[in-house]
Amino acid sequence: MTLHVDVDGVLADLREIAERFGGPGGARRLAWSPDWLEAREWLKGKLAELPVSVERDVAGNLWASLPGSGDGRGFVIVGSHIDAVPSGGWLDGVLGITAALGVLRALAAADAPPPVEVRLVDWADEEGARFGRSLVGSSACAGTLDPDDVRDLRDPEGTRLQDAMAACEVDLDEAASGARSRLDGALAYLELHIEQGPVLLDTGRPASAVSGTVGDERYLVNFTGQAAHAGSTPMRLRRDALAAAATAALEIREVGIRHEGVCTVGAMKAEPGVITAVAGACEMMLDLRHLDADVLAAMLADCRRACETAAQRFDCGVEMRRLFGATPTPFHPRLVELAVGAVAAAGGGQGPPIPSGPLHDATEIGRVVPTVMLFAQSDPPVSHTRVEDSPEEALRIAIDAYGRTVGEALSLVAAGPLEMAAR
Amino acid sequence: MTLHVDVDGVLADLREIAERFGGPGGARRLAWSPDWLEAREWLKGKLAELPVSVERDVAGNLWASLPGSGDGRGFVIVGSHIDAVPSGGWLDGVLGITAALGVLRALAAADAPPPVEVRLVDWADEEGARFGRSLVGSSACAGTLDPDDVRDLRDPEGTRLQDAMAACEVDLDEAASGARSRLDGALAYLELHIEQGPVLLDTGRPASAVSGTVGDERYLVNFTGQAAHAGSTPMRLRRDALAAAATAALEIREVGIRHEGVCTVGAMKAEPGVITAVAGACEMMLDLRHLDADVLAAMLADCRRACETAAQRFDCGVEMRRLFGATPTPFHPRLVELAVGAVAAAGGGQGPPIPSGPLHDATEIGRVVPTVMLFAQSDPPVSHTRVEDSPEEALRIAIDAYGRTVGEALSLVAAGPLEMAAR
Repeated sequence: MTLHVDVDGVLADLREIAERFGGPGGARRLAWSPDWLEAREWLKGKLAELPVSVERDVAGNLWASLPGSGDGRGFVIVGSHIDAVPSGGWLDGVLGITAALGVLRALAAADAPPPVEVRLVDWADEEGARFGRSLVGSSACAGTLDPDDVRDLRDPEGTRLQDAMAACEVDLDEAASGARSRLDGALAYLELHIEQGPVLLDTGRPASAVSGTVGDERYLVNFTGQAAHAGSTPMRLRRDALAAAATAALEIREVGIRHEGVCTVGAMKAEPGVITAVAGACEMMLDLRHLDADVLAAMLADCRRACETAAQRFDCGVEMRRLFGATPTPFHPRLVELAVGAVAAAGGGQGPPIPSGPLHDATEIGRVVPTVMLFAQSDPPVSHTRVEDSPEEALRIAIDAYGRTVGEALSLVAAGPLEMAAR
Repeated sequence: MTLHVDVDGVLADLREIAERFGGPGGARRLAWSPDWLEAREWLKGKLAELPVSVERDVAGNLWASLPGSGDGRGFVIVGSHIDAVPSGGWLDGVLGITAALGVLRALAAADAPPPVEVRLVDWADEEGARFGRSLVGSSACAGTLDPDDVRDLRDPEGTRLQDAMAACEVDLDEAASGARSRLDGALAYLELHIEQGPVLLDTGRPASAVSGTVGDERYLVNFTGQAAHAGSTPMRLRRDALAAAATAALEIREVGIRHEGVCTVGAMKAEPGVITAVAGACEMMLDLRHLDADVLAAMLADCRRACETAAQRFDCGVEMRRLFGATPTPFHPRLVELAVGAVAAAGGGQGPPIPSGPLHDATEIGRVVPTVMLFAQSDPPVSHTRVEDSPEEALRIAIDAYGRTVGEALSLVAAGPLEMAAR
């Protein structure tokens, strides 16, 4: 079915949120805070104008269900998150929420109900900005939230995540065990978001389908050589840990280029770290991302080899400690195909789907439900700052393309559920 | 003349100092402290056994004069410093003091007085360990101490250098203006020290003549690119300041090797410095040293070019800020030649003079008086720590070679003063 969202209505909602829960200082919608609850009350007010039933699940996610004609054939999910980082932008998360609201409005205004039920979701605590754990609500639904991993996380004031959730009437253990059933019967999940990166801006594209969210490997790499006096130690007698780290960092860049992924050395700390001493140790932070799990593994192997070769060259030792790992979530190929076509139909031009470097709720949901995302161009190509923005024309095309994708997806899944690829 | 120092006596003095003013916690002879004054009282006690006159100059340096036969023909200076860094080693400074004491003893025991007067000096506050300004007493004599540069230096407790000096009855302004005349008539300065580096250990040499102390240029180098999300920013769209710094650091290493000097990047600090961000800025600490002022200037030019080329390659900007500069002090070629011969005669083998990376009092005195140093091997090749050490055999050869060098130098300058090279 062809679905046309009222783009002006979505833009009006976005501006209203920016005015009421943002302003010159940036977004004020930190998860589990009174500001966040207030923004949700606004959303509930908008939902109250529609023929939907609204409820909150045990993980704190907010759901609004619009009945379809195909009773018992499952449901399609649209949504994103209304929470934001402190002083964040006016589009991150809320673009997807308001576009999903536009979808419900368009469906409710249609002559006939949609072929299957459509549910809007506002995931709880996508950002993890307060306690350091992102995707809380969506991972509870996807079954990947281990309460013991997060129970003792504290915010800078010392408040525990568990207690902040309880203050919002969410029980952490119940969230982790009870929210999974929420996805029983889910046929598809579709999310619109801003890119938060420079790819669409660089290629002049207003919007794009997203091929998936990349896998991520994070390591601390420690090189150990021999601290020595910068004046009395000839070059040939040095075991310079910083030189080893610099050599590895540059080779790691090449690994990223070679595999068409991203490899980042974002920090380097030398010991003793003074101007008059050759570094005896150097710690380096490493982040690797790729959409293909096999390529990600190959990148990691190459980076490991680069570190070992560099260490050897400067007569240093090296140790790598894994800090974090996330497997890639490739989105559903049929839905990605629909999104590519919808972007073109909305005037966004032809162009390949692009991978998402940042994680999204779709990363979690995409592991268990056929999923796709669409991106609107970011200009400037940054996020998590109040200067985050997108050209209005890009937003219009992206919102339109999102509505079209949802319409096509409804027709597709009404004909029968999509198969998830073997993982 | 051939001069034979009683090496056993020197070693006995060294051990006595280690026992009385050191111990398991390391040296306790911090300049301008009661400990330091006490160590000097010990030295005065030893000098009192010799036919010398002892006095302190206005800069706090301690002098002991042994008359020579050639009245009015000037004097030769032997010495080093009795002050030490906190928890320092048993040889840094005191090796030169005890060897100079050995020289006075040998001369006093000889049948005839030396051809010219010989003066032992214990320079005040060589280390600068308490106030951050080293070579205080020797720079006052060399005329390079500007009282306004150091007047407000404070130790960690907040005491001013000026006040700590006053407590030892030294007036800072008088020191800076009045000590210069102390070098009027100085014919040569000879100092024995431990190497504090790995060159002699690496080449299996117990001792060596020193060719001079190197010049030193210190810079902060700031690369600026664009901070960006490590996940959403493709490699080709990055302006990675850390990659620029790493590239420059590795090229700077090559500059040191090419010019046979030392180039050190001892620290690197990225902004924002988190694992999920491409560095938007990176600050790097740079230290360059060479014995030849022209080569040092060429090294600096090469390093500047390396930084600019690296910045350009990663589409970054770069700025260099000078933190410190010291010109090289090449020692007097005739005296260096004598020291090379004396090391060989003492059983230390043939070997070229080596440059000193660390600064010494000889750096200051060598600017205005014909000067030479000798080094004893350091094993382990470290200093400013209580594990600092030298093999006894190396100390024996170095002390013997020092005495021989002083003897030859006395004969040389008795025949007429040496000329200083044009600077």
